[in-house]
Amino acid sequence: MRRVAQETPAGVPLAQRASMQVVEPGERFELESGAHLSPITVAYETLGELSRTKDNVILIAHALSGDAHVAGRYRPDEAAVGWWDDFVGPGRAIDTDRYFVICSNVLGGCRGTTGPGSINVATGRRYGMSFPTVTIGDMVRVQARLLDRLGIDRVAAVIGGSMGGMQAIEWAISFPERVGSAIVIASTSRLSAQSIAFNAVGRNAITSDPRWCGGDYYDNGEPLGGLAVARMIGHITYLSDSSMQEKFGRALREAEKLSYGFDSEFAVETYLDYQGAKFVERFDGNSYLYITKAMDYYDPAAECSSLAEALAPSKARWLVVSYTGDWLFPTAQSRELVDALLVGRKRVSFVELESAYGHDAFLLEYEPLATIVSGFIQSVRDGKK
Amino acid sequence: MRRVAQETPAGVPLAQRASMQVVEPGERFELESGAHLSPITVAYETLGELSRTKDNVILIAHALSGDAHVAGRYRPDEAAVGWWDDFVGPGRAIDTDRYFVICSNVLGGCRGTTGPGSINVATGRRYGMSFPTVTIGDMVRVQARLLDRLGIDRVAAVIGGSMGGMQAIEWAISFPERVGSAIVIASTSRLSAQSIAFNAVGRNAITSDPRWCGGDYYDNGEPLGGLAVARMIGHITYLSDSSMQEKFGRALREAEKLSYGFDSEFAVETYLDYQGAKFVERFDGNSYLYITKAMDYYDPAAECSSLAEALAPSKARWLVVSYTGDWLFPTAQSRELVDALLVGRKRVSFVELESAYGHDAFLLEYEPLATIVSGFIQSVRDGKK
Repeated sequence: MRRVAQETPAGVPLAQRASMQVVEPGERFELESGAHLSPITVAYETLGELSRTKDNVILIAHALSGDAHVAGRYRPDEAAVGWWDDFVGPGRAIDTDRYFVICSNVLGGCRGTTGPGSINVATGRRYGMSFPTVTIGDMVRVQARLLDRLGIDRVAAVIGGSMGGMQAIEWAISFPERVGSAIVIASTSRLSAQSIAFNAVGRNAITSDPRWCGGDYYDNGEPLGGLAVARMIGHITYLSDSSMQEKFGRALREAEKLSYGFDSEFAVETYLDYQGAKFVERFDGNSYLYITKAMDYYDPAAECSSLAEALAPSKARWLVVSYTGDWLFPTAQSRELVDALLVGRKRVSFVELESAYGHDAFLLEYEPLATIVSGFIQSVRDGKK
Repeated sequence: MRRVAQETPAGVPLAQRASMQVVEPGERFELESGAHLSPITVAYETLGELSRTKDNVILIAHALSGDAHVAGRYRPDEAAVGWWDDFVGPGRAIDTDRYFVICSNVLGGCRGTTGPGSINVATGRRYGMSFPTVTIGDMVRVQARLLDRLGIDRVAAVIGGSMGGMQAIEWAISFPERVGSAIVIASTSRLSAQSIAFNAVGRNAITSDPRWCGGDYYDNGEPLGGLAVARMIGHITYLSDSSMQEKFGRALREAEKLSYGFDSEFAVETYLDYQGAKFVERFDGNSYLYITKAMDYYDPAAECSSLAEALAPSKARWLVVSYTGDWLFPTAQSRELVDALLVGRKRVSFVELESAYGHDAFLLEYEPLATIVSGFIQSVRDGKK
């Protein structure tokens, strides 16, 4: 568990990048809110080969700030690889020599899938805040449409960390016949008040930036300052107190003495500045609003008498993983999910991994998550149902 | 510990409000940074009567967002009372029938003491960011000047929570002959990386607000949006996860159904909106920058081989209080202070109080803090040294 992924067992594969219109213009695709949205385009990526019987599909769902580019590179000479490249590739935990991996950008996102920054064909202008509110359920039904278009009835596994785990839960509930197993990592079936509060403050940072202009900023300057602040807030919650202390402590960036000025001087400040600046290059402020709202709303048990009742339709095998250092979605929330699955007599494995990293551990630590996930997937494939 | 202060043992006293120039125009008062500042005016408040021998003074130091108005009311018909009125008054933990209580607004503040919103006499304009960086040490030396002017050589106790506790530590180190006892509540001798990170993000929220204008906003619109976001971030850190969950959970403000819109709808969102809006009515964005920076900088051990060495000059008796639910300044940080005091053979009492409230418990829970503090002060007064 201590080893941070650096070396990977094999070379970096090429990922196939594509996009597909999954809701046609004029079609009425109804969202959970009751609003309709069309057309909907989905940006997605695949790695590996689809088996003849189409029984080797693994669907990866990304988190708040992720995108479809989960692993590999798009061109052989490209330096950058996908966000979970350590885990996904030939011989890795999610083995692209054996599995056909699909990852798509979520509905409401800003990395190729229809979202608030997309052109509304009815007006010829970008949606902005006229984009309808989307939910985790909507995201999943759009992914299901994508699988329909690809001729894939069923996935061996749907896997995701953080908001990706919420999508895995939703898949297992909404499409029980299509999901062989659900792997939910560092996630929760519903946000706590504190998590909603952090999301709300991030949204406030964006909407109180005068450049936000009610979301109608695409032809002018974007609310980059607010978006960077939102990302900084998020980043604090993704790391544990102890990992920040170990990594940065009270170290100064370069000087040995305090500057008595207001430029960032503690190393942790410089780190946050960097994370904020890097994020605004690739993310849209309105998408941040829509996606965090979808997270806040998610609560499959809301209309049920219990979480177990909400999970009752699921026919999947489950693997739930939490991290000791994760204070954003702490182990207690994973346990709540596991307990509800057990009440419903579902097959569920649960592991709490010790990690100093915090919430982001699933992105930062290769082992033992890799062994656990690959072993679980193998056992599902071996038909130990 | 469970009882939240509501009933107070006696009526609300009148507080005496005053201000005093403690550094004259033209005088060169050197700050820790090496910069000079003059004049300096201090806004302060007193309650109770100074004894003939001046041996009954208790100095209260306020936290980041506090001010000199610690207790009582300024006029008999006034509804509002000071921020620690439950603790300070006739018959209360800090008994104004016995003690002469002084509380002053900190240097760099915006509630009457010289700060970035004050007029720079050299230019005739408000300082803004030309105000020099101030430290906890500077705040304390300005308070010492105030006591000089009031003819008070020595205080029976200096007491403060959070940043107020830092000032109590600094008093005991810098003015060992003047401090009978130091009471440090929910505080720390230095911020962790995570706490610096939260402060840095709060400052970023203010400075990335285009209305901030490099701090030169006093004649135009203030950066209220950014300041409100900073306050919201702070408020999340002042409450514990469990207290937020218990108080708000996932409850909606009024509606029974989700709005599928972007107005605040979860109760916790409305709460944060309210805290943000209330705060910007009484606080200055630049002061927020300066005061959080002073907190970040505070680290009396930085130039010493150990915290014990830094604390060596102190001749005070110490009381250190932490709260189990405080994740901003957790008990481990109080223990670090206590351990260093013990290494230095200081007289120190330490209590960790169980509280679900989090960091703000010292403002919210009357007992057992009241009993502990009053007992400690009494024992110091009884000469059990």
